[in-house]
Amino acid sequence: MAEFAELRVGLAQINPVVGSLRENATKILDNYKQAVKAGCDVVAFPELSITGYPPEDLVLKQGFVAENRKVLDEILKSIGDTFAVIGFVDQDKDSDEIYNAAAICQNQKIVGVYRKHLLPNYNVFDEQRYFTPGVHNPLFTIKGACVGVTICEDIWDAQGPVSVQASLGAVLNLNINGSPFHAGKIGARREMLSSRARDSECVVAYVNQVGGQDELVFDGGSMILAADGTIVASAAQFVEELLICDLVLPRSKSVAAPQQSRGQIAEPLDEDAQIFAALVLGTRDYVQKNGFKDVVIGLSGGIDSALAAAVATQALGSEHVHGVAMPSRYSSPGSLTDAKLLASNLGVDIQTISIEPAFSAYLEALAPSFAGRRADLTEENLQSRVRGTTLMALSNKFGWMVLTTGNKSEIAVGYFTLYGDSVGGYAVIKDLFKTKVYEICTYFNQQSGRDLIPNSIVNKAPSAELRPDQRDDQSLPPYEVLDPILEMYVEDDLTAQQIIELGYESELVKRIARLVDMNEYKRRQGAPGVRISTKAFGKDRRLPITNKFSG
Amino acid sequence: MAEFAELRVGLAQINPVVGSLRENATKILDNYKQAVKAGCDVVAFPELSITGYPPEDLVLKQGFVAENRKVLDEILKSIGDTFAVIGFVDQDKDSDEIYNAAAICQNQKIVGVYRKHLLPNYNVFDEQRYFTPGVHNPLFTIKGACVGVTICEDIWDAQGPVSVQASLGAVLNLNINGSPFHAGKIGARREMLSSRARDSECVVAYVNQVGGQDELVFDGGSMILAADGTIVASAAQFVEELLICDLVLPRSKSVAAPQQSRGQIAEPLDEDAQIFAALVLGTRDYVQKNGFKDVVIGLSGGIDSALAAAVATQALGSEHVHGVAMPSRYSSPGSLTDAKLLASNLGVDIQTISIEPAFSAYLEALAPSFAGRRADLTEENLQSRVRGTTLMALSNKFGWMVLTTGNKSEIAVGYFTLYGDSVGGYAVIKDLFKTKVYEICTYFNQQSGRDLIPNSIVNKAPSAELRPDQRDDQSLPPYEVLDPILEMYVEDDLTAQQIIELGYESELVKRIARLVDMNEYKRRQGAPGVRISTKAFGKDRRLPITNKFSG
Repeated sequence: MAEFAELRVGLAQINPVVGSLRENATKILDNYKQAVKAGCDVVAFPELSITGYPPEDLVLKQGFVAENRKVLDEILKSIGDTFAVIGFVDQDKDSDEIYNAAAICQNQKIVGVYRKHLLPNYNVFDEQRYFTPGVHNPLFTIKGACVGVTICEDIWDAQGPVSVQASLGAVLNLNINGSPFHAGKIGARREMLSSRARDSECVVAYVNQVGGQDELVFDGGSMILAADGTIVASAAQFVEELLICDLVLPRSKSVAAPQQSRGQIAEPLDEDAQIFAALVLGTRDYVQKNGFKDVVIGLSGGIDSALAAAVATQALGSEHVHGVAMPSRYSSPGSLTDAKLLASNLGVDIQTISIEPAFSAYLEALAPSFAGRRADLTEENLQSRVRGTTLMALSNKFGWMVLTTGNKSEIAVGYFTLYGDSVGGYAVIKDLFKTKVYEICTYFNQQSGRDLIPNSIVNKAPSAELRPDQRDDQSLPPYEVLDPILEMYVEDDLTAQQIIELGYESELVKRIARLVDMNEYKRRQGAPGVRISTKAFGKDRRLPITNKFSG
Repeated sequence: MAEFAELRVGLAQINPVVGSLRENATKILDNYKQAVKAGCDVVAFPELSITGYPPEDLVLKQGFVAENRKVLDEILKSIGDTFAVIGFVDQDKDSDEIYNAAAICQNQKIVGVYRKHLLPNYNVFDEQRYFTPGVHNPLFTIKGACVGVTICEDIWDAQGPVSVQASLGAVLNLNINGSPFHAGKIGARREMLSSRARDSECVVAYVNQVGGQDELVFDGGSMILAADGTIVASAAQFVEELLICDLVLPRSKSVAAPQQSRGQIAEPLDEDAQIFAALVLGTRDYVQKNGFKDVVIGLSGGIDSALAAAVATQALGSEHVHGVAMPSRYSSPGSLTDAKLLASNLGVDIQTISIEPAFSAYLEALAPSFAGRRADLTEENLQSRVRGTTLMALSNKFGWMVLTTGNKSEIAVGYFTLYGDSVGGYAVIKDLFKTKVYEICTYFNQQSGRDLIPNSIVNKAPSAELRPDQRDDQSLPPYEVLDPILEMYVEDDLTAQQIIELGYESELVKRIARLVDMNEYKRRQGAPGVRISTKAFGKDRRLPITNKFSG
């Protein structure tokens, strides 16, 4: 017997749809057949690939779990000599408890099952709500090599199952993932995988799901790392791919690891490119997986709606994006021409619908009730709500999903109108602070080779244009001042007091913190949108609405 | 030494405000002083009484946890010979891990700390997101009696810490709770507490928080059960109370438990009374704890808005409730007179604002865009959105919170207009199926001694009145048919297939299930409202929006 086993490994970085069990099965089998054709000995699919990740409370439905098992059994019929590692929900026959599991399949049979040990229950994750942790470390022999299987979180713990399995003899670990994107994550992931490979002297094959699922974007980026921690093959981010790589593995841990043959290595994207790609994929999948083809966007002539429209055209094609300009008595003349120039640059149709008639009608109908009261925020919000209602009417009539265009800075401090500019099915840039919006616009224009988002839009002072000569900086500090404070308060969970102790101006910090807290009720009624940071407004951040803490 | 210890126990059923640490401390000390005055030997406060329950992601702020500890230290200064058991967030100095804990305090000192063992992570609970489980079972000697302390979930497990502590010698268990209400819960709670007392041959003193916190209502209902399982004292539900009871406890487990002197026993409420009280308390606390005094409600002349208004008057006083009738070309003449009669019966002011001018203005502004298209749902939704916008304008101008009036049946199948009748800060009856709405209206009228909700409202056929002669049963099955299917699908997590197998009509069930699934996006942008069932739309039910399961 030779000292080394030669193994061709396939990592199927697929984009499943949550709940679409049969569609996902078809995708799994298509990739399996492709891998067989390419001569793979084993092909691994992402975490919970049958259900799509995360299935959330669907797994509390006994009928859903049963169906996921039935679909796995159907897939099995087509599994031959090439091993398949498939993520599914495993139910214990005696206890009825369920596990986040991987089926290791060959020749129409389940050869073994690995049940995830470490169940994340922080940030966007709720796995302890559903699953019982696994405790076993089964090992598998594939073409003479001793192979371990783990699931996502399992590999992040240096003392976890990967190291245990290696100590039991595994020379390759197949780690299947539903690992969501955030800015900077792929670097952290690579570093961790590299040390895990080195620590456990074991080749690591990491396969990740790709695609958008509500707030989350899964970025793929599957990779294989040699036992010395170097990347020997990697897939692109944000696209489906079947990554194939030949491995030469020692038959025993006592034999030194051989030089790996290198597979294909995808060019890594820089951070702005990753963020833009995440926005595009998240938007495309949310719109299309929910059965829509077209979207409608209110184009104000400002930078937020410009970036949202740019993302939408990349996600869906210009012909599926519809712009609406909705001028009022307070709109600057530049706003309408900027909106039209943007639409023309992006190849998007644009119609103009004045909000004046409806705005006036409301003012008249409300005049008796408002008698003796001065104009205030009410009238500003009214204009914004006429715009929201107009967009929804177009949505209802033509079957277009409304994309909403608020950024994280505005959403944080409540500088938007609930049921007004917040209306929509999906909030494209909700997790980008305003300063980041500018950065990504610059990236988009550079990538496009020309200023598709016109300079006049990029350079104008931000304004909601809801009263004469309004500018954001009349109500808010400049975004360069606001955003770092928001980042500390919202993303880093510092209290106002802690931020002040870092040297920021006391009154300003307290005011911002108070705005963030008191606007929780508005955010709670907002649309989902692409998660870009480590703490987006959504499942990531579960603060009470009723909350009198002011620390 | 006598065989028996005589102990006067106080259970302080308080209504804290989440995050309002100092206000909560004041409430704790007020009750402590009252208990001391009444001669109590020990007084127990609810779970996490310093922070209010549930503090959710506030506990991820290190500064919040530090502040909660500082407040406990301040409380300590006023603690004398009478023991106090106070719920707080305990942080381990070495590991920084946090625990849901109870401080047992006497004479300015923390005598000991119990850390909750069993952390619920299902339904509305996320405790494993935050806390590390405790493992110790410290026992305390109070006036010669051996006393154990546990927290909420701990007592629901027959083999859990209560039984362990009893086996170690505890003759009394002080169980502190943040246990939210649902219909039928108090019966289940009593039964469980009774068997726990009997099983462990131990007196059980159960203290629960009272009050509304976002979706949740805590119903109090604190009680003391003798070791034979009988209730010897109980507090009322839904109100603050300091329950005091004298206990005679054996100094050793080997001595038979004596006859208990009975304390005050509150009359139990029947189920409809509990539900109505929960709606009232939930609404009052949401409105007032968020800094509002007044609310505004659109009165359509239908039963949902009638019940919401009735609840609001009980919660806030009639003078703080403002009705608005917003007739359109499709409103029946009866609607307006019914709305006015209701307002007069409830002592609520009502103004009439026609939606026609704004509706017409929209139709005109949209006419070029809609050219060649027939009227459809768009125009119906428009009317509803004009109403929503009108209510929000009144809210903005006068500082009234909008109460929204949708019921669970409508919300389940999406029979409402997003940004239309769904607008509002709080959704009073969102967890009541339509058939239950009728039942609670009947209860309210009976309690009131006359038909404050007019018969003409109770008896009319449900209609949204958004097109000529519209009735709900043109779009939906009768609510007597719809509601049981919704209950199985939404609350019991049956799949459509399982419901069909129970004998329900296949096409109907599939249609209802599809409606529930496809309207998840609408619900996600809805207001919070009082949780009444074991599965409300909210933190209880976390289904993906993007979801193609149709099992």
